[in-house]
Parts: sequence; C-alpha cells; structure tokens
Amino acid sequence: MALSNPTSIGLFDSGLGGLTVLRGMLRALPGHNYFYLGDNARFPYGTKGTDTIVRYARECAHFLLSQEVGVLIVACNTASAAALHVLENELSIPVIGTVGPAVRQALARSRSGNIGVLGTNATVASEVYQQAIRAADATTTVSAQACPLFVPLVESGMLRGEIVDKVVELYLAPLKERGVDTVILGCTHYPLLLESIQAFMGPDVAIVECSDAIAQDVVSLLGEHATPTTAGSVNYFVTDEVGRFNFLASAFLEGQAVNAVRIDSF
Amino acid sequence: MALSNPTSIGLFDSGLGGLTVLRGMLRALPGHNYFYLGDNARFPYGTKGTDTIVRYARECAHFLLSQEVGVLIVACNTASAAALHVLENELSIPVIGTVGPAVRQALARSRSGNIGVLGTNATVASEVYQQAIRAADATTTVSAQACPLFVPLVESGMLRGEIVDKVVELYLAPLKERGVDTVILGCTHYPLLLESIQAFMGPDVAIVECSDAIAQDVVSLLGEHATPTTAGSVNYFVTDEVGRFNFLASAFLEGQAVNAVRIDSF
Repeated sequence: MALSNPTSIGLFDSGLGGLTVLRGMLRALPGHNYFYLGDNARFPYGTKGTDTIVRYARECAHFLLSQEVGVLIVACNTASAAALHVLENELSIPVIGTVGPAVRQALARSRSGNIGVLGTNATVASEVYQQAIRAADATTTVSAQACPLFVPLVESGMLRGEIVDKVVELYLAPLKERGVDTVILGCTHYPLLLESIQAFMGPDVAIVECSDAIAQDVVSLLGEHATPTTAGSVNYFVTDEVGRFNFLASAFLEGQAVNAVRIDSF
Repeated sequence: MALSNPTSIGLFDSGLGGLTVLRGMLRALPGHNYFYLGDNARFPYGTKGTDTIVRYARECAHFLLSQEVGVLIVACNTASAAALHVLENELSIPVIGTVGPAVRQALARSRSGNIGVLGTNATVASEVYQQAIRAADATTTVSAQACPLFVPLVESGMLRGEIVDKVVELYLAPLKERGVDTVILGCTHYPLLLESIQAFMGPDVAIVECSDAIAQDVVSLLGEHATPTTAGSVNYFVTDEVGRFNFLASAFLEGQAVNAVRIDSF
C-alpha cells in the first residue's frame, strides 16, 4: 500500500481515551502532523451494539480522510474490535488498531501464558482479544473481564481513591484469583487507572497497554518517512462542545494546551 | 391547545431512565397507547453540551410526532432542562417535562424549604431546577449536586451494594451536611438507586421523583379524555440494538416483557 501523505497521521476515539495513544505517538514520532477526532457527541462507544459502532467508526474515518491523513490509527479498543476489518477493507490508506499491538506486547511479557484482558462490554463480547491471543499462541489461557464503570470513572475525573480501588477490586479480583501474570488494558481510558490496577494486582503482574506498541508499528510502517520533517502539529476536532474536552484533554496530555475545533456531527 | 389524539402518548429518553416515568403513567393512566423512544445509540445525554442535547431532543420529538402522538412527555431531566422550551415553542401538541412536576412535589413536601437537587452534569449546570424552585418560592435554599456516576451504575445493573453506597455517600454527604429535608431525584435513572439514597439520608428526608407528578399533570391535561378507551398498548423503539434494551427494560418494568423495534438513527 503506497503512503500518500506519510507525515499526516489521523487518530479517532469516542472521546478522551485515544489521547493516551496520541501521547505515545508524540513521544515516539514527533515532527509529524496529527489529526485527532474525539466523537464526544456519541460517547461512549463501549455500551453500544456492533453495527452502531461500525457506523460511527466509518464516519470518523471519513472525516479524517477529508483532512488528507496518510495513516489512520483507530485509537479506541471498542472501535478496533468492532470495525478494524471493515476500515481495512474499505480504506485506501494503512489502518492500525489497538488489538494487535497490545496482544503482541502481552505475549512478549507473559511468562506463564496466563493472560487477563480488561475492556468495555462491547470489546469483551466481541471476543476479538481472546481470539487474537489464542491464534498467536494456542497454549495461552485468556480471561476477559468487562469493566463498564472504568470509563465513567475516568471521564468524571475520578482516577484514584477509595471508590476507584473498590471498583478495581470488583473487576480484577477474578483475574487475580486465576493467577494471570499479565493484564491487557483493552481500552484507551484504562491507563489513567494504572496506579490503582497495579497496586491491586501487585508488582509481579505486567500491565500492558497499546500505546507504545502502536507507536512502534507506525514507526516501522513509515520506514524512511519516520524522520521528523516539520515542526509538527496537533489538530483536535470534537463533535460535541469544546470546553470540557479542552480542559480534560489537557490533563491527559500532562498540561499541554488543547484547542479543539468543533465539527458538525455526522 | 387542541388535543388531536389524546389516547396516544409519546415519551422519550436517552435510554432506560424514562421507563420510570412510563411505569408511573401505566399505573395512573392505563388504557392508553404509549410510544416510548430510547435513543440508546447516543446515550447518555447528561455528559453532552446544550446544543447537542437540543438537537437530539428535537429529533426524538419528531420521530414520536410521526407516530401521531397527541401528548409528548420529555421523560429525561437532561433533555427537559436543555430543550423543553424549544420543544414547547416548536411543536403543536402539549409537551410535558420533568422539572416542573418534580419541583411542585418538592415544594409540597419540604417543611424547612431547604431542598437538594441531584442531576447529571448537564442538568445541574443548566441551573433549571435551581431557578424553578427559587421562582416558585424565593425563601427556599437550593443545593444542587451533579452525580455523574449514578447513570453508569444503573446502566451497568449495579443498584445496591458497597460501591453504590460509597458513591451515594460521596454525592449526598454535602447535602446532608447542609441539612436539606427534601431531595429531588433530577434524573429518571436515579429512582433505581432510591434504597441506598434513602438509607444514607435517613427516613426523615423526603426523596422526590417526577414520575407520579408527571402522571398527575397528564391526567389533568387530558381531562375527560383520561378515561381508558382502549385495551392500551406500549410500543418501544430504540436507536441502538434491541437485545440489551429489552432485557434491562423488563427489569425496570418489574418483569413485564419488552419487545423494542429498532429505528434508523437520525
């Protein structure tokens, strides 16, 4: 597949979660032009049905194509699980999702092959993670756990404290009991809860998220084009109002100023 | 305003919450034909901006008008707070929201005039409740509290237990400290958390929700037409998939079978 515009990279998510992926990209691949779309008018995706998620993902992808991006990152596990194969088939630019990179990293880090996956209802129900792990290594054991309260906790700014710890215990206790040695954070919001998750699972359990592995994939995809050629820029777009997005996005990006542009919803 | 089709009553909500209002209507006014629309493809509304909520409310209302309803109930506090005046101006049928009925009931029950209001971020930020209470009685004191985790708790089926009690304590403690004697559940999801809220506030605090008061308003609006003339029916419509809606809706309606029809999203 030819790379038509390799310095322009598009990312989309239902809201803020994909910013953890953007953060990884900005570290690994500065000097590029990023286009980030947060579809916050229809947030969250993880509680919705597959064909609704596919429709939303398609619309987000087409908006980013209209910005002439040369690479598309589906920076949302729910959209990757439901729609990556659709986008790969329909689009003429490379499309990178979250699942493959996260699975690769989990398999590299797990010693026992006993792996846990956390995700939204939609991601866990899709079984995309379970299938990808078993396809890569049939000797592994996979336990998946839906965590429907994690996204609302993050989006309401609640990242630590007693309630977070109780919810983490509720969802992680079954995985701890099964003795997993690696846990995939199968939702781009979940890295914000890393502190509590790591504390509950203990220091010997590897907690894996996709952002670094995605950045590696994009760097190797770009090859010679992975050298900074511009000062770099980030353009933020949202489908709902900008005020709250800018405020929370800045927290995701360690204080960096964010000035999103509102686009008409699809 | 003429009542063109008084036996057909439309209700909409972003998802399941409005079913608490429907339940009240079915008790107070059986033998009518109800049309319930849950806009679950874009759920929730309470985290969205005002103009996005107005757009969604308008689209839901127009769908219900296409079903030839004679009365429209905005069975969602967030949509009532943001869009009731818009719908009242634009539509040619009577429109009833949640705020007025809930405020009326709270003022009737409060002895001290020290009233608390719970709602979504959007409802609390709109200040619609605060203004309506003070407009009705300038001597009252109103404390409003946004409860962004309540809707996710209800939608994930978590209605009681330690986590619910901790979240209830987090949001209700400031109201308890201020000595409110009445609390308005300013979101149609919140009645599902009544047990925990009442337990935390104690038996002397009145907990008010809008559904009975709405039913009273509709009965008095219909006047002579409030007599059952048919066997009655309920037609459910959703914008996302039906399976999970039917399952959870049945729990909201005390086991009654629900068979929703999916409509194209707007």
